[in-house]
Amino acid sequence: MSLLLVSKNRDLKPYKEALLELDPNIEIDIWPGVSNPDRVQFAVAWRHPANLFEKFPNLKVISSLGAGVDHLLSDDTIPESIQFTRIVAPSLSGQMSDYILTAVLNIIRRTDNYLDQQRKTVWKPLDSLKKAEISVGVMGLGQIGSEVAKILVRNGFNVSGWSRTKKTIEGVTCYTKDELGAFLGKINIAICLLPLTPETGGILNLDLFKGLKQPAYLINAARGEHLVEEDLIYALDTDLIHHATLDVFSEEPLPESHPFWGRKKITITPHIASVTDPQESAELILENYKRMLSGMDLLHKVDREAGY
Amino acid sequence: MSLLLVSKNRDLKPYKEALLELDPNIEIDIWPGVSNPDRVQFAVAWRHPANLFEKFPNLKVISSLGAGVDHLLSDDTIPESIQFTRIVAPSLSGQMSDYILTAVLNIIRRTDNYLDQQRKTVWKPLDSLKKAEISVGVMGLGQIGSEVAKILVRNGFNVSGWSRTKKTIEGVTCYTKDELGAFLGKINIAICLLPLTPETGGILNLDLFKGLKQPAYLINAARGEHLVEEDLIYALDTDLIHHATLDVFSEEPLPESHPFWGRKKITITPHIASVTDPQESAELILENYKRMLSGMDLLHKVDREAGY
Repeated sequence: MSLLLVSKNRDLKPYKEALLELDPNIEIDIWPGVSNPDRVQFAVAWRHPANLFEKFPNLKVISSLGAGVDHLLSDDTIPESIQFTRIVAPSLSGQMSDYILTAVLNIIRRTDNYLDQQRKTVWKPLDSLKKAEISVGVMGLGQIGSEVAKILVRNGFNVSGWSRTKKTIEGVTCYTKDELGAFLGKINIAICLLPLTPETGGILNLDLFKGLKQPAYLINAARGEHLVEEDLIYALDTDLIHHATLDVFSEEPLPESHPFWGRKKITITPHIASVTDPQESAELILENYKRMLSGMDLLHKVDREAGY
Repeated sequence: MSLLLVSKNRDLKPYKEALLELDPNIEIDIWPGVSNPDRVQFAVAWRHPANLFEKFPNLKVISSLGAGVDHLLSDDTIPESIQFTRIVAPSLSGQMSDYILTAVLNIIRRTDNYLDQQRKTVWKPLDSLKKAEISVGVMGLGQIGSEVAKILVRNGFNVSGWSRTKKTIEGVTCYTKDELGAFLGKINIAICLLPLTPETGGILNLDLFKGLKQPAYLINAARGEHLVEEDLIYALDTDLIHHATLDVFSEEPLPESHPFWGRKKITITPHIASVTDPQESAELILENYKRMLSGMDLLHKVDREAGY
């Protein structure tokens, strides 16, 4: 049997090397170089080509190469019998916490305004947002979202959280699915860390923006498809949203002609908030590979119904 | 007797209002509107005019309106008999911690490089600096520096500290005066929070930059006079320093013609890292005013010999 690594946009050699370092005896193929499709029982995938997995009759498990699995769930050609897992790693939560904390601090300390003033040779102290007077809200309280909420609390922010199922996190006011309005009315900075599911796609829209406390800000580090892009531009132009920090986009790389690029009120990063580390993920992939071979329960199995 | 508020560049009305709210019976003058110079026993000063304090024969105490007292110590016309105090307030340390944490996170997450790429419509993930692989060093471990060091530790950074006298801070490797070389050799990001004294003026110079671990970065939020400006430009041009974040300058406002403005590798903020809050400082000023009137020891008295 063999393990297959698949991605249209990532260099997978470091992952193969990290896996072989842990166990030199595993047979590993990197797509498209598959020696024998019948031997593939376990695949690790990030942005795989359409209809690919039909070619492996003995495939039992596909692991996402990241925390998100929307790229697997949205592929109807993958048989129901195949199990999905995903990478849950401390470094993913740690990187995301740093990214979000950086973005939130830059908002309250008005980094963008000062950079703009610097470009114009303008020396002018501005009022900063006081931590005590603003609130941040984390949408999605999974492994990563919970960790981000805790780090924000630890740094003195008023933090609320919103998730499908009720969560309890010390220092965080937690809301569930039906309480979206109440949650939005309490927060100035909306931080999207939701899984992408049919229910959450397009959730960052004009209605949501209107529900936020003023002054309002948006940070999206989940998936581009959570955001209705034209609604954001409208909200920025009408000052409903003062600034948006975006790490993800419905089309990546963000096309050169996209209107987001030129907007001063948008900070763009190229999907770098949280990047899977080959060494760290290799251990988890190998553990699940062995569990599959042994017929044991997989770690971090995806609930296909819930969508994460 | 009366209390005098003096500043060439700050609006002091909010301070007068905050003081009167706490005690409506105090007599308060705002320079230059002094009703009777003989009655002035206590002054609160920030950037006062030269020779001003000679005019008040009964002046006993001058409080700085901030944490720094270099503007008082450098004025030779102030009699030795006058005591100096300064503002030590939680909000000053809190604001400074946020400013430094923001600057450090922006360095490791390469915010400046991404902003530059955004301006050029370039989508390109870059390697970020890993927290585990870099070290930050706080120069000056007074009330503010110690708090900044603690916040950096709490956010997962390797932190060293350097101060005149030996300090003990949990999680921080502390060095004293004579161990500057050892301290610099351990750190990538030098954070200056020193008091300005004859010993520390010009300490941020080429020799110091050469002593840092590569890649090296500088953050100065203490006083402009700590930095030898031409040495910084040379160090940036030769990649000895990769980026500098500066909140303070030897001339403020920074003159329009100053070469710092146009440098991409320098982030400029207009002395806003930590700003005294009228409400919070009014309580401390009033407390010291009453202590002076009662002949009690002052809070946060300045050691003129040590220079802070």
